[in-house]
Amino acid sequence: MEQHLSTLSFTTRGRGLVDITGRVRECVTASALRTGLATLFLRHTSASLLVQENADPVVRDDLERFFARLVPDGDALFRHRDEGADDMPAHVRTALTSVQLAIPVRDGDLVLGAWQAIYLWEHRRQGHRRELVVHVVGER
Amino acid sequence: MEQHLSTLSFTTRGRGLVDITGRVRECVTASALRTGLATLFLRHTSASLLVQENADPVVRDDLERFFARLVPDGDALFRHRDEGADDMPAHVRTALTSVQLAIPVRDGDLVLGAWQAIYLWEHRRQGHRRELVVHVVGER
Amino acid sequence: MEQHLSTLSFTTRGRGLVDITGRVRECVTASALRTGLATLFLRHTSASLLVQENADPVVRDDLERFFARLVPDGDALFRHRDEGADDMPAHVRTALTSVQLAIPVRDGDLVLGAWQAIYLWEHRRQGHRRELVVHVVGER
Repeated sequence: MEQHLSTLSFTTRGRGLVDITGRVRECVTASALRTGLATLFLRHTSASLLVQENADPVVRDDLERFFARLVPDGDALFRHRDEGADDMPAHVRTALTSVQLAIPVRDGDLVLGAWQAIYLWEHRRQGHRRELVVHVVGER
Repeated sequence: MEQHLSTLSFTTRGRGLVDITGRVRECVTASALRTGLATLFLRHTSASLLVQENADPVVRDDLERFFARLVPDGDALFRHRDEGADDMPAHVRTALTSVQLAIPVRDGDLVLGAWQAIYLWEHRRQGHRRELVVHVVGER
Repeated sequence: MEQHLSTLSFTTRGRGLVDITGRVRECVTASALRTGLATLFLRHTSASLLVQENADPVVRDDLERFFARLVPDGDALFRHRDEGADDMPAHVRTALTSVQLAIPVRDGDLVLGAWQAIYLWEHRRQGHRRELVVHVVGER
């Protein structure tokens, strides 16, 4: 049994879902492990990880619209607004999703379903630099 | 340290929570590992995994009712409706929960609490065939 | 590759976020593993785990207020009220967050970001004794 730890950086362009499947796959390939477990951890409190449909881009638009309605920017309920009207909503959206994700590896690849992709979900309106730690444990 | 990878199939009967604890436990038992970590990954974007109360079935009904109100089928907000009024709500419900779950193993069994069961939550109105990958790593 | 399994107990004082980062860190330190993966699992259905901002305490208040509005205590929708008006809301809040969390370990420490802390979120109004299982796998 072996393990490999790597760090990926992403520069987002503001709120929205960024497909990071390819970059994560490269970490798995680089580890040379054929069977195992990959765990992703995002080191932030206003962006999250999501596994969602990779086909129709309207799904991503609808997800964005739903979360914008559920957690409105500038909601009078929120008192923490140090970084603006989207500050606290970004924290809530992160709490409603997750900053970590574990996916088994089989035949040297993530066992994602045919319609699944891994997204980094930026919840702030401005772009940010985001750091993702990828841990892979398993056997060659 | 050893690992075991298996795949379970479930045929759901439409929206609702299906207790899959027994089937997952069988994978752990089959691995013969006494101490370790079990990770479940559901290969879909309109069904999810949930750890919830296994006692009063009304809890599951209430969860269903809450999510039906929070993410209404046929909501005018949604533009993605290729597969009907419950298509996009199923994606949102999956985003609000999760497709993966990691549970430590102790004495050859999952360390679930007395009131916890593992559920596969089907979010589509029609039944579907769902595939779950189970990874167990640890020692005998 | 080695693994270490431990159990932590916490006595909460009612609804709210309890910073458990220090206690989890101690488990990682006690394992003596320098590189690996830590997985936390909470054995309950009315409390959850959350990674959130550790700086401004108003963030935690706002999270609490948002969830109290999203899932109101005593909501007429809920039929399961065996343990009072906050019983079913506690289950829903747990479903919307998560009872498990996996974080890679690097240089003998969790790879948390500068602003991240690990919280145990008690969702019941009364304090409870909560049990957390911590699994660490990796190398010295």
